[in-house]
Parts: sequence; C-alpha cells; structure tokens
Amino acid sequence: MSGLLSVIGLGPGSRDLLAPMALSRLASARAVVGYDRYMSLVDPALLQGKTLFSSPMKKEMERTAKAVEFALDGLDTVMVSSGDSGVYGMAGLVLEHLERENLLDAVELEVVPGIPALCAAAALLGAPLMHDFASISLSDLMTPLATIMKRVRCAVEGDFVIALYNPKSRKRGSYLQEALSIAAEHRGPDTPVGFVRNAYRPDQDVRVATLGSCDPAWADMLTIVIIGNSASRLAGGKILTPRGYFEKYA
Amino acid sequence: MSGLLSVIGLGPGSRDLLAPMALSRLASARAVVGYDRYMSLVDPALLQGKTLFSSPMKKEMERTAKAVEFALDGLDTVMVSSGDSGVYGMAGLVLEHLERENLLDAVELEVVPGIPALCAAAALLGAPLMHDFASISLSDLMTPLATIMKRVRCAVEGDFVIALYNPKSRKRGSYLQEALSIAAEHRGPDTPVGFVRNAYRPDQDVRVATLGSCDPAWADMLTIVIIGNSASRLAGGKILTPRGYFEKYA
Repeated sequence: MSGLLSVIGLGPGSRDLLAPMALSRLASARAVVGYDRYMSLVDPALLQGKTLFSSPMKKEMERTAKAVEFALDGLDTVMVSSGDSGVYGMAGLVLEHLERENLLDAVELEVVPGIPALCAAAALLGAPLMHDFASISLSDLMTPLATIMKRVRCAVEGDFVIALYNPKSRKRGSYLQEALSIAAEHRGPDTPVGFVRNAYRPDQDVRVATLGSCDPAWADMLTIVIIGNSASRLAGGKILTPRGYFEKYA
Repeated sequence: MSGLLSVIGLGPGSRDLLAPMALSRLASARAVVGYDRYMSLVDPALLQGKTLFSSPMKKEMERTAKAVEFALDGLDTVMVSSGDSGVYGMAGLVLEHLERENLLDAVELEVVPGIPALCAAAALLGAPLMHDFASISLSDLMTPLATIMKRVRCAVEGDFVIALYNPKSRKRGSYLQEALSIAAEHRGPDTPVGFVRNAYRPDQDVRVATLGSCDPAWADMLTIVIIGNSASRLAGGKILTPRGYFEKYA
C-alpha cells in the first residue's frame, strides 16, 4: 500500500504562520521532499531521521517523481512548497505526474493549504486586497510574454487590484516596468504600490509607494508587488482599498 | 496607551488550519470582536473571561467602532474574520475607520494573515490555482452589478482561473448563472468548475463538474466557485490547471 502524499505550504516560512495541519504532516512523514531553499525553512528537528530529498530550482519534475516514488514505496511523504502549495506551487505538478503515470488510483494525494505569499504581503501592506484582485506571475519561463502582458492589460481594464509574483529575475529586467506602465495608463500616479520581500522572515523588507514614485529596482525574484485599484489610497503609510462601507452606510 | 488591535483570519475555521500567530493573539487578547457566525468558530476556552462583542451580518461598521473603542480603552483587542482578514475581510474597514477618525497614530493596528477561502477551496478541488487567477465577489451590496460583470468579462478575456466569492444570496439568484455563461462564451463545455461549501468544516461539500454540466443551484452564499482557465482539465475527479512543466521539460 502506498503512503499518503501530502503537498503542503509552509506559508511565509515562520513557524508562527505554519498551519498545525501542515506541521502534523511534517511530524508524521517518513520522507520529505522540497526545493532546497524551502527545506531550509523547515525546523531541522522535524526532518531528523527521515528520508530527505532536496534539489535546486528548475528541478521540480525530478522532485515530483522522487516524492511519488517514496509514496509508492509505502512512505508517508510530504512535498514542501512555500506559501500555499496550491498557488503557483507543487500541487499541480504532483497531480499531473500522477495523471500521466496512471497513478491516480495508486497514490493517495492530499493538498494541505497554507498562507499564500500574496496574503502575507497584503497583511504587511495594510489592506490592499479588500476588493477583487488578480494574481499574475511575471515569469516567462513557461508562459509567453505576450500572454503575461495581455493578462496585465485585462486586469488593469477590469480595475482589479493586482498582485505580481516573480516580478524580476536576471533575465527579465524590464517586465515589471512594463506592467507598471500599463497600470499607469489607466490609474493615477497616486495609486499605491507595495513591495514586500521575505515577508515574516528575518530580512523582511516592506516598501509602500505610488505608481508615480516607485522604483522597479526595489523588486527581485522574491518580491511580491501589489498595485492598488483605482479606489486604493494610502492611509498612514499603509495601502487601503476601500470596500465601500463608508460610502454606503456612513 | 491604547491596546494592540489585531485583525486576524481564522482560516477555514478548523483549529487545524489556524495559524499559531492568530491563536496567540486570541489567547492574549482582553477583548474579541466579530461577526456572530465567525465567533462561533473560535474555541470557547479562548473567549472565557474576555470582553466580547459580536453582531450579525451588515453590522460591520458597528463592530469596527467597538473594536477600536476597546483598543482605545487600553485592551489588546482581536477582530475576527474568517479566511484571511485581508481578503474581502475586516482589515480594510478597521484601517479606514482609523483613518476617518484620525486615529492612525493613536491605535496600533496589526493584520495577521490567514488561509483565505479560495486557497482552502482550491486544496479540496485539487490544483486549480496553478496559474494566474482572478478573485471576484458576486455580491452587489456595495459594487454595481455592471462593474462585477465587467470584471468577469475581463478575467475571462485574460484567461484567468476565476474564483467567485459570494456567488449567491436570496436577492441575487442569477448572477452566478450569468458569470458562468460569460465564461462559456470563451471556454469549452469541458472546462472544470468546482463548488466548495464550508471547506474543512463538519458539513463540507465539494463538487467538481464542468461548465457544461454544473448547476448554479449547487451554490449558496457560503460557497466558493472556481472556474478553470482554457488549459484546466479534470484529473481523477480533481481540477488540474497545468503550469506548463510537462510541455516544456517532458
């Protein structure tokens, strides 16, 4: 009989924001698999005496195959993602692997939700996600740039608050600038923009600015950028997207 | 000196998915404020001996004023939201109240992130949020219907996975039908659609269907509906939105 394969999200990484359900899966697992950077966020005591497999970025498929192999060997296995494993995380890759290998009935798969990076960033920025929002990854590793920028245009057109993942890498210097420029075509220069890097980690960096004043150079691969909608404003250094209560009831 | 005012998210509601940070704020609070339905999700032991204030739906502004009043009285106060307090939650209303009453410097406000309803729903549906997604509330209490449907159109046009909050109430019988019809103009009848009600609660209900086969009557006010993008598919009764790894690397 196969082991239980749990794909968990660590949340931002601090133990304080790790769901007890994810912690309990880590505690009872006999094998733990993950991207090396995320494995280092796990309390080493939880990994002791277990079968471990970690590998660098872009080795996602190898890790997925390994996790499924451990589960097939009968080990309760945890696949680690940061944030929520269901938001640009490993849940999909594992499910797709099981589908392609005809293992959907052979392995019991469970996705344990976590606090996604956009919520961790939003909490530190104030209250930017109070109204409809769109989440877009600027990574063109597997998505054509034209598709990405079309999505930015549609999100701006729909006046969504926009959360940008992977705003920058060495190869993609200008995509964030391009996205901000598209937003600036429809939203004023006072529209708030927040940059959050390493939320709730020791080197946390939070910056609040506006479309007119922000600098794309503040972002790196680990930053979440949140652009307010046309009603968002700054309030005491925080970003506030009003829901409309005061307009309706006050 | 004012007390700390923490706006927390309970996550789906089960203790298993409540972040330790939120639990610790509840434990140390001297006052707890919330919507009565959500207050009932909190372990009664955590509320014993504390100043409590709960009220029904649509009394959000009253609760906000009360929480700020408690904090000004020097009580460490927790304002309770379900899911993540930063996603259609109470964080914005509290921040806006402080802004309007000129209390931004008088009260220390902290937003503690939680697992939002769309992530809890996604985890139970498989892996629908692996690619860019839009979150839209179908409640027209404070948003004109035309704005809501424009957002649905923009999200469909951008090929976003779409998470719908508040898909239905007694007064709004047909909005979900309308949103699904807009999606069906651009996405095939086999596009997966998931309905999740009361995720991770005792009366949890999860249904996976397609644009061609789903019934809007499955949804009520507490349901999250997730519509796949043009690449999403069913895999072993789960919803899978492929990220593109297999196309690129396999």
